[in-house]
Amino acid sequence: MTDQFAKKAEAWSARFSEPVSDLVKRYTASVFFDKRLALFDIQGSLAHAEMLAAQGIISAADRAEIERGMAQIRSEIEAGQFEWLLDLEDVHLNIEKRLTELVGDAGKRLHTGRSRNDQVATDIRLYMRAAIDDILALLRSLRGALTDLAERNADTIMPGFTHLQVAQPVTFGHHLLAYVEMFGRDAERMADTRRRVNRLPLGAAALAGTTFPIDRLRVARTLGFEDVCHNSLDAVSDRDFAIEFTAAASVLMMHISRMSEELVTWMSPRIGFIDIADRFCTGSSIMPQKKNPDVPELARGKTGRVYGHLMGLLTLMKGQPLAYNKDNQEDKEPLFDTVDTVLDTLRIFTDMASGITVKPDNMRAAALQGYATATDLADYLVKKGLPFRDAHEAVAHAVRACDDAKCDLSEMSLERLREFSPLIEQDVFAVLTLEGSVAARDHVGGTAPNQVRAAIARVRAQLAE
Amino acid sequence: MTDQFAKKAEAWSARFSEPVSDLVKRYTASVFFDKRLALFDIQGSLAHAEMLAAQGIISAADRAEIERGMAQIRSEIEAGQFEWLLDLEDVHLNIEKRLTELVGDAGKRLHTGRSRNDQVATDIRLYMRAAIDDILALLRSLRGALTDLAERNADTIMPGFTHLQVAQPVTFGHHLLAYVEMFGRDAERMADTRRRVNRLPLGAAALAGTTFPIDRLRVARTLGFEDVCHNSLDAVSDRDFAIEFTAAASVLMMHISRMSEELVTWMSPRIGFIDIADRFCTGSSIMPQKKNPDVPELARGKTGRVYGHLMGLLTLMKGQPLAYNKDNQEDKEPLFDTVDTVLDTLRIFTDMASGITVKPDNMRAAALQGYATATDLADYLVKKGLPFRDAHEAVAHAVRACDDAKCDLSEMSLERLREFSPLIEQDVFAVLTLEGSVAARDHVGGTAPNQVRAAIARVRAQLAE
Amino acid sequence: MTDQFAKKAEAWSARFSEPVSDLVKRYTASVFFDKRLALFDIQGSLAHAEMLAAQGIISAADRAEIERGMAQIRSEIEAGQFEWLLDLEDVHLNIEKRLTELVGDAGKRLHTGRSRNDQVATDIRLYMRAAIDDILALLRSLRGALTDLAERNADTIMPGFTHLQVAQPVTFGHHLLAYVEMFGRDAERMADTRRRVNRLPLGAAALAGTTFPIDRLRVARTLGFEDVCHNSLDAVSDRDFAIEFTAAASVLMMHISRMSEELVTWMSPRIGFIDIADRFCTGSSIMPQKKNPDVPELARGKTGRVYGHLMGLLTLMKGQPLAYNKDNQEDKEPLFDTVDTVLDTLRIFTDMASGITVKPDNMRAAALQGYATATDLADYLVKKGLPFRDAHEAVAHAVRACDDAKCDLSEMSLERLREFSPLIEQDVFAVLTLEGSVAARDHVGGTAPNQVRAAIARVRAQLAE
Amino acid sequence: MTDQFAKKAEAWSARFSEPVSDLVKRYTASVFFDKRLALFDIQGSLAHAEMLAAQGIISAADRAEIERGMAQIRSEIEAGQFEWLLDLEDVHLNIEKRLTELVGDAGKRLHTGRSRNDQVATDIRLYMRAAIDDILALLRSLRGALTDLAERNADTIMPGFTHLQVAQPVTFGHHLLAYVEMFGRDAERMADTRRRVNRLPLGAAALAGTTFPIDRLRVARTLGFEDVCHNSLDAVSDRDFAIEFTAAASVLMMHISRMSEELVTWMSPRIGFIDIADRFCTGSSIMPQKKNPDVPELARGKTGRVYGHLMGLLTLMKGQPLAYNKDNQEDKEPLFDTVDTVLDTLRIFTDMASGITVKPDNMRAAALQGYATATDLADYLVKKGLPFRDAHEAVAHAVRACDDAKCDLSEMSLERLREFSPLIEQDVFAVLTLEGSVAARDHVGGTAPNQVRAAIARVRAQLAE
Repeated sequence: MTDQFAKKAEAWSARFSEPVSDLVKRYTASVFFDKRLALFDIQGSLAHAEMLAAQGIISAADRAEIERGMAQIRSEIEAGQFEWLLDLEDVHLNIEKRLTELVGDAGKRLHTGRSRNDQVATDIRLYMRAAIDDILALLRSLRGALTDLAERNADTIMPGFTHLQVAQPVTFGHHLLAYVEMFGRDAERMADTRRRVNRLPLGAAALAGTTFPIDRLRVARTLGFEDVCHNSLDAVSDRDFAIEFTAAASVLMMHISRMSEELVTWMSPRIGFIDIADRFCTGSSIMPQKKNPDVPELARGKTGRVYGHLMGLLTLMKGQPLAYNKDNQEDKEPLFDTVDTVLDTLRIFTDMASGITVKPDNMRAAALQGYATATDLADYLVKKGLPFRDAHEAVAHAVRACDDAKCDLSEMSLERLREFSPLIEQDVFAVLTLEGSVAARDHVGGTAPNQVRAAIARVRAQLAE
Repeated sequence: MTDQFAKKAEAWSARFSEPVSDLVKRYTASVFFDKRLALFDIQGSLAHAEMLAAQGIISAADRAEIERGMAQIRSEIEAGQFEWLLDLEDVHLNIEKRLTELVGDAGKRLHTGRSRNDQVATDIRLYMRAAIDDILALLRSLRGALTDLAERNADTIMPGFTHLQVAQPVTFGHHLLAYVEMFGRDAERMADTRRRVNRLPLGAAALAGTTFPIDRLRVARTLGFEDVCHNSLDAVSDRDFAIEFTAAASVLMMHISRMSEELVTWMSPRIGFIDIADRFCTGSSIMPQKKNPDVPELARGKTGRVYGHLMGLLTLMKGQPLAYNKDNQEDKEPLFDTVDTVLDTLRIFTDMASGITVKPDNMRAAALQGYATATDLADYLVKKGLPFRDAHEAVAHAVRACDDAKCDLSEMSLERLREFSPLIEQDVFAVLTLEGSVAARDHVGGTAPNQVRAAIARVRAQLAE
Repeated sequence: MTDQFAKKAEAWSARFSEPVSDLVKRYTASVFFDKRLALFDIQGSLAHAEMLAAQGIISAADRAEIERGMAQIRSEIEAGQFEWLLDLEDVHLNIEKRLTELVGDAGKRLHTGRSRNDQVATDIRLYMRAAIDDILALLRSLRGALTDLAERNADTIMPGFTHLQVAQPVTFGHHLLAYVEMFGRDAERMADTRRRVNRLPLGAAALAGTTFPIDRLRVARTLGFEDVCHNSLDAVSDRDFAIEFTAAASVLMMHISRMSEELVTWMSPRIGFIDIADRFCTGSSIMPQKKNPDVPELARGKTGRVYGHLMGLLTLMKGQPLAYNKDNQEDKEPLFDTVDTVLDTLRIFTDMASGITVKPDNMRAAALQGYATATDLADYLVKKGLPFRDAHEAVAHAVRACDDAKCDLSEMSLERLREFSPLIEQDVFAVLTLEGSVAARDHVGGTAPNQVRAAIARVRAQLAE
Repeated sequence: MTDQFAKKAEAWSARFSEPVSDLVKRYTASVFFDKRLALFDIQGSLAHAEMLAAQGIISAADRAEIERGMAQIRSEIEAGQFEWLLDLEDVHLNIEKRLTELVGDAGKRLHTGRSRNDQVATDIRLYMRAAIDDILALLRSLRGALTDLAERNADTIMPGFTHLQVAQPVTFGHHLLAYVEMFGRDAERMADTRRRVNRLPLGAAALAGTTFPIDRLRVARTLGFEDVCHNSLDAVSDRDFAIEFTAAASVLMMHISRMSEELVTWMSPRIGFIDIADRFCTGSSIMPQKKNPDVPELARGKTGRVYGHLMGLLTLMKGQPLAYNKDNQEDKEPLFDTVDTVLDTLRIFTDMASGITVKPDNMRAAALQGYATATDLADYLVKKGLPFRDAHEAVAHAVRACDDAKCDLSEMSLERLREFSPLIEQDVFAVLTLEGSVAARDHVGGTAPNQVRAAIARVRAQLAE
């Protein structure tokens, strides 16, 4: 019996009377994107072979041969010398064929007690686990870089906006910490997803398990999985973790899009709150004066890419009967692209955080536009005994008068202010300053500089864990 | 100073020179959907008032009045006698206005130290927490019902499919447990989401915190929150939890769509694996003979609804600058509809599980079509010493011969079988039976009936926790 | 034989042994949302009855009875006196039952030669056609209102942005006309969709056509359809038009989101390009000074809603086998909500366009920030003979010098400018003015005021068609 | 002044003090995917140069040089010898730099009066137009192939399903024509999209038009555009056509997913309606007997991919302010992948249509299961004078009796049938045959074989246009 790989490439072709066409080969092959899984595939195969030998399913000699062959394949791949063949469909068959070339029958024994269905599910989980770990490390770096910037700006006053209208003064440090919180939740979600990724499907074989006396818990231990998948049909068809990961990545990119939107707006000349270092900007082919914040714009655009992958994966799995269907091959490219997009974006944002120049004068000037301390005046009246709703009403009238007079609340005379409430006295002017307003919001989560510093200490403690 | 509610309904109108038009009112109002939050709004207000009094920001008498008023409002709402006014925009102002009618100035003091921005964020989190708890209870019921059905069918043999082609025999109990695993992961995700829902935004006020000496941890304790949101800007603008919940619900509905697809297929006459009780089916207005599995079809269709809500929420938050923007009002309807869809679907599927009649004869007949034991033959040869790849090749030839001869592998003579491998002996026929095949997959996660029973015991233990 | 409606409500229940449960009824019923189709259902039934009589399938007397009954039902519905019953599932059975009450056997004959499958497909197409016509009329109004505003601002200079950086001066009229173009394309797409909506599915019956000698072309003519659906299986299962409409609506809402983003930004105090009339804004419950552009923010948020419906409908139809499946009932709510959202948004934006106050001084001041005429300087050099790439390079150096000197290009001395190119002469200052820059872009589609006026005339001619 | 390309690669860098980092270069560069636009970029540049010369903006000699250089570049690209440099960012700068190397100052003059913003918009529209033409040709082929198969099966009876329950008999030819209709609508939508693609943005320059006396209509004529974009701001920022195309592609892929679902189901052994040629199927690495319909499964999976791209593009454009932003660079990869996916899928499905083997016996056997002629019996009673609703009720009782007796309607005795209605006579048995049922649905769009043949003739006439 000749080697069926040499003869016709596919691992299953003896049953078929007609070869697949070239277009079909290209359409159904995955090797040009799933070769990214090669080292994980080898890792999984070695753990499988170790177990097969421990259980006496293959001999110790076969296992040694497999290890020898795989070591060589790994170095060929790392050296870029491995030849990937479209004819061999996918990463698994490419490696298995090379193994058989190198070690003969031992290589043909490797696939005992497993199927490509559980093999690819294992590979992708190993890949995802590593990707999540990279993302967690980068989230930590980004949070650190933003916290550093926040610390330097714990007292820098800017207008806090709601509805893009000036609402109340906040510190720039406080504003930045909002993103530190968001990226902190992203890390939580990634860690939660990791738990569900980190379960071993191997041993499910095609869909029903195998007749060989395998030891799945042993393989799980070897590969560092926390648990095994407890149902073989589910194990080969489950792609929940891919969706869950892409959903977490979508929220992460949504946060990036919000931050990008703000960076772009802040760099617009009429706002001018910040400048972004030249190395994150590009120019125009026609307009010689342009310096464009390309990186945050592109990152904002890449949000759509990841949302799209999420929607693609959800669509993929909708209505699929058990167990494995070929549809599932379509899970890889969106996952890989999501991982790449998130990793690149986090790296570049971490670097960019240190390239932000803050322009406190522009921030301060903006905070003085829009009656940012009106709420402070209302609170002042409440503290003098007026019910809040009545205080709010009184200040609304005062603001309207300022609007007509084109002045700020703090620029009105005491006499004029008292027209709106006789409770107003000389001490009102202390609460109408930006510094007074900010310092007064002095509770957990508030914008008072000492609260900002406390929040920074809290984040630093988290990051040091 | 007159009551501004009586005068012009909105809580903010003294600053404005022109009333909003009716179309604008309708376009921007939320009361017709957010009144669903009413009891959570009251719960949050009571905790806020309790804290205000404890901190000396309002008097004990004011707090008592607020509690008296709220008790009455709650009973008016529960009795369906509360009059919701479009003119009052949202659930918060409707309730606050009624409170002020009932208890006067104490009512006007309730809004001290908070804003609608943190108030609505608190309400929606209280609502989500309760919804998740309901979903968790229903997931438990559905998993229980499916496990009961699985137990009754731990030995019922059906064809296991991959690519909708007969792959290997499995038991129907094993197949059902795949869904029990899926719904188990859904419960895990819901529980993870709950942790991020269960944090208190109240105290963030409009966006920057408040100048009153509030005690946020006290309010968190009163309301059963595990933590407070640690940044006020983030607290009022964060809708991550809504996206995360809807993503978890999308995966859950994806599982429902897969199960529905299978139920519909299994009930198709050529398959005929099951029958669904009449009460979950409907007929045709034109074809008198029809009995249609409407419930699973509709559930499959509702998957799109929830996916759509997820995409809507992700789009909503994309590129939003800090802090609160009116866009966020659009978070509620998709959330409410997602909750309703998931609750109804889980309830009806739990009930339907007990209305499934299994047709073991049809399952068995189907398992005998498609050479379901071919892998067993390959494994048999491996155990006789042939490398797996060669065994696979030999069996592929045998299957092709069966195909030509229109017989099953088990129907071939020993002599004929030995043409494909001289290793085949009389004992081969034991491995070619459905029962033999199923029983041989005897490891964690495999389809052997004793493994199915072990898995059932494991699930029951989880459900009993 | 008794009336099966009276007996058990559903049109198909004689084949069933068990009634559906209340939850199932609620889950599967559509009457509470599809009653919106009532008048279209009657319109379709009348055309069907007219054809049945013309073909001799029912008697003229039966047809007259049906018309009499339907007239009464229509007035009951219009008067709000029609009683919709959940037990009767959907709008079709509710109306048919009432018809049978009113006119007896003639009512029972109405359903001859049709099924609910083709009936509902006809209803929804009649509804969609009317909705599209409403949308087309509103798009015309909105384009008209924006064109009016553009005409008043054909000479108003503002900074044209790319990357939110000042690029080149444009006129506000020109900027507004960009949206007039977008909404013009939306109208084209809606008109294209209308052609595919406006085809008659009736006559497809359940899925295969009917054994009665029906005349589908006659019904199409009566109902104003341009063609019939040419395949019965396709006719009952096609929901392409719903997806195509929602896709067109998504692009329309995307345009609304872009315009909203700009309105919100333009109203932010540091930009201050426009003010929006108070009636489209709301205030804050806590900050007395706030005037928030709620309408554009909410419209921007509603984009997600429509995107979500599109994704929901695409998911709904993915992988559905022919012909009708119950999944399809889920097409209605997203369609209805999309129609409502688009209609309300277009109405309110048309009204809002006339409530925009332009602040030309702020626009002009912004245009003077950011070297908006740098491209004009490069073009000037090209006209003096320098290759464009070299001119671009020279001006880039000049801009950098201005940046260091904190002055505009027009503020540099001729001598200083000549350091960057000896080709620069006294006439350069004419091209460095905002007016000169704008007027020089004088070709089809350019921002020169006379081109803007020509574009306005072109739009007005389109609108007058 | 040195060549700035040689010096630092970017076309805009003289204004910058710091080079972009390698990560930023990779993150923001597009050349590795937009080089696909190269020949369209050259085509657009040649038309631009022709116009510049005709308008006297550049000399005839310069134009000749540009043409000479571009001819060489084109052959370098076609020969695979063109060196694409990441440092040169995008396809435009790579080509322009090479042109300048080849022809000196003439090359530097090419960019006169245009910007990359309108240049890339032109390239992408030229690419889209060609892609749509390819898709239209393939849709025509696929419709032809399906029509051929339909013709061979105009009389082949199969069960028509609704709700995957047997509804009424139809012919397989009729069923196939449903897909021919769907793909016909896809072609309509693509043609509609083409009209909106086929408008020239060139001349919009960066965003405001140019100061050079360009002739946009001349360029439009040269490039075969039907119109010019009439607003420069809109021209550079419009990506409607990309969304519209991807929406049309999504509906097309949805149709593919429905057909795939049916092919997979039909090939499942219990159904067995068809077989798909081996060359479109693959086997299993573990199960030697498997022949899996990989192509339709993968195509069904690829639906998600295209849906995802649509969602990505919609997200991309949501809330983008005018005019060009870097986000827009993200439009290309989803578009390219959508085009590739649609082209490959249409090609492979056209080929596969001729590789389908029909199994009429299995279809017929299935049509006899499920009382497919029950509606015919009801129609029979109506023709004897019974109102339809009463006839429906009578037949429902008969079906229930058959269900209990485990026989078909046609197998009941006349006597037994008459128990359900005394109107039934001997002639009933003619209407209870599959052939009688099918032949009786004899109207436009019905399943009668002569109607199927008429529909085929209609399609052939369309295809011959």
